[in-house]
Amino acid sequence: MSETEVLVRQKAQAAHDAAVRMGILTSGVKNKALLAMADALLDHSEAILKANEEDMLKAQNNGMKSSMQDRLRLTPSRIESMAEGLRLVAQLKDPVGEVIGGSTLSNGLSITKVRVPIGVVGIIYEARPNVTADAIGLCLKSGNTVVLKGGSEALRSNQTIAEILSEAAQKEGIPSGAIQFIDVTDRQAVTDLIHMNGLVDVVIPRGSARLIQAVVQNATVPVIETGAGVCHTFVDESANCEMARQIAFNAKVQRPSVCNAMETLLVHEKIADAFLPQMIEEFIEAGVTLFGCEKTCQFDPRIQLASSEDWATEYGDLRLSVKIVRDIDEALAHIARFSTRHSECIVTENMNNARRFQSEVDAAVVYVNASTRFTDGFEFGFGAEIGISTQKLHARGPMALPELTSYKYLVTGNGQIRG
Amino acid sequence: MSETEVLVRQKAQAAHDAAVRMGILTSGVKNKALLAMADALLDHSEAILKANEEDMLKAQNNGMKSSMQDRLRLTPSRIESMAEGLRLVAQLKDPVGEVIGGSTLSNGLSITKVRVPIGVVGIIYEARPNVTADAIGLCLKSGNTVVLKGGSEALRSNQTIAEILSEAAQKEGIPSGAIQFIDVTDRQAVTDLIHMNGLVDVVIPRGSARLIQAVVQNATVPVIETGAGVCHTFVDESANCEMARQIAFNAKVQRPSVCNAMETLLVHEKIADAFLPQMIEEFIEAGVTLFGCEKTCQFDPRIQLASSEDWATEYGDLRLSVKIVRDIDEALAHIARFSTRHSECIVTENMNNARRFQSEVDAAVVYVNASTRFTDGFEFGFGAEIGISTQKLHARGPMALPELTSYKYLVTGNGQIRG
Repeated sequence: MSETEVLVRQKAQAAHDAAVRMGILTSGVKNKALLAMADALLDHSEAILKANEEDMLKAQNNGMKSSMQDRLRLTPSRIESMAEGLRLVAQLKDPVGEVIGGSTLSNGLSITKVRVPIGVVGIIYEARPNVTADAIGLCLKSGNTVVLKGGSEALRSNQTIAEILSEAAQKEGIPSGAIQFIDVTDRQAVTDLIHMNGLVDVVIPRGSARLIQAVVQNATVPVIETGAGVCHTFVDESANCEMARQIAFNAKVQRPSVCNAMETLLVHEKIADAFLPQMIEEFIEAGVTLFGCEKTCQFDPRIQLASSEDWATEYGDLRLSVKIVRDIDEALAHIARFSTRHSECIVTENMNNARRFQSEVDAAVVYVNASTRFTDGFEFGFGAEIGISTQKLHARGPMALPELTSYKYLVTGNGQIRG
Repeated sequence: MSETEVLVRQKAQAAHDAAVRMGILTSGVKNKALLAMADALLDHSEAILKANEEDMLKAQNNGMKSSMQDRLRLTPSRIESMAEGLRLVAQLKDPVGEVIGGSTLSNGLSITKVRVPIGVVGIIYEARPNVTADAIGLCLKSGNTVVLKGGSEALRSNQTIAEILSEAAQKEGIPSGAIQFIDVTDRQAVTDLIHMNGLVDVVIPRGSARLIQAVVQNATVPVIETGAGVCHTFVDESANCEMARQIAFNAKVQRPSVCNAMETLLVHEKIADAFLPQMIEEFIEAGVTLFGCEKTCQFDPRIQLASSEDWATEYGDLRLSVKIVRDIDEALAHIARFSTRHSECIVTENMNNARRFQSEVDAAVVYVNASTRFTDGFEFGFGAEIGISTQKLHARGPMALPELTSYKYLVTGNGQIRG
């Protein structure tokens, strides 16, 4: 066993050993701890900023891209946001102990299906240090212990935040061991963590498609895939053109770097003449680079011909592919082929097409006449978000506290035996 | 790509392509198909028996154990049972389309959380041909398509059953492609199937611990682990001795080969004198071989000293390990260490101990004063069972139709965009 594996196993074991006591803490204790943790972040903001400076200096010396540097950078107001996040989690309803089903059998056995924590949650993430505080807050509130493996670029920042939060939590009665931070840069640590069957109950990767796929492909512990978003908006023949333009513009331009932004616009051929010219102007004016099918390219010389790869690409920036389709069938077939099952939208005034689209599209969230940008735990009113699942097992779409729980059956009798 | 992989990919692709149409079938169509499939099994029972005879002959020539031969053997009454199973599934409530949540946001967006099929379910199983019919029935009723890989010993039986059911289903409007049977004995087919990410949505292994662990350790598609059961019964100081003996006897003896049978009996030291002597007599009289801790061995010379391995063993037969513990803490610690998180029981008249046991034991089903043998989809009133999950993600404990579904969010607006 390598030194790194020994360390990871030690931390996973500590989290595992703390899980039972963590799981039975009352909401009162957990909420008080979360508030104290928020205070501790602010009280120690100088130490956090100093640690972050070290990370930033190293990043600059290593020639990190400025967009990445921006993700890594902490400021007093970003620390204030982290603290505020923990306070908001304290206010959310505790999912643990919720009775979600049950019955009394004819033999008198009473069955109660009750929410319980998952146990030990592993979080594997990249450069953003705020994930450290977010993930710790959500895991603790849902009664889980947590093992964190952050990006090596943010090691000092993450380590400092985790230490401060862990110390504050323990003072308020959170079991020591509940918060584990893997403080090595060795990439082997990720591989070790995703093989800790029996100690780690689930791993949630957050970050680039490459990171997520590496975890999905190699993990033996269960994984919740928070995947890429190749999101489509289909403007149907009957769409209100003005509404369609607003929705498509918002879905592409409002924040192009996120997974719920639109990557492909599908346009019914019978509405293309009425819809596309102004839409194209608006996009180009906003700095969007357009890649179109052959028919789309005829609308404007500034549109480049899309390659077959474009339809499958999550641009994550101000690029957009546009395709004119014969009908809703072709739109559905295109989406079925290229969708990553994240968020898909139809703009239509036709009841049957709306119903059919929502029924047949296989995605976490299927919109009629609204921007795909709403796929988000906060927008959905969940009060929090640990990620957006693009798999169909366990949880789908925005995940908040209930999605960090499992359940168990409590069965109580007075001597029942099976005949 | 090997020939086997080409074949498996072809079948997974066919199941994937049929999934959308399968997912939107009405209950009426599905139920009619299930009844027709039941009829078809009976109509073609001669062909099934003939195919089974071929498998049995081969098994006998290969020197298969008689207990395995019994699992493999089909009779007219076993075929009748399979048909009856399909008819019962037709009567169960269709989980697809059930609205399980939702809200209207302040911006007017309406969100509906609705159950949908998982998509493509892979089932990997061993010698029992009845699993073929059971799995097909449950997957179809829950709107899923299914890819089956059965044990090579039962190839001809499974193949014949799958063909008969597939043909009958198609006649009633089930999409062709919805039922896929991998008709090769090459073990590589299992490896291929559990790597069909993008085509197969979940794999459920059913069978020996070895099979299940091989799937869990190697799959890249999500897996639902239907694991082993090292189930404990703890007889607390305050237990009603007569009730405790009945529960423990039932949990061990009524059907020792199944996963919800008891493997270890824990006895509070203060009740051991009153409880154990008669219990030991009853077990030995029933043919149970006892392995005890040192204290237990002092009760009877016929008890063998347990090795450290015994506490972790799922015997699956008439062997039982017995340990005397100081108190509930030692019982809880023993269970935490050796439990496979399946089913655990306390026999007690003490309210606080009952409550504490149910709260602190991490298992799918936690019993007070009832036999662990009740962990079963039919006993729980679910009307069916595709397996018993021992993992905490997605589903835990007995799984029936709702556990074969996912959900999606349908969001409907009138032009909402994100600010």
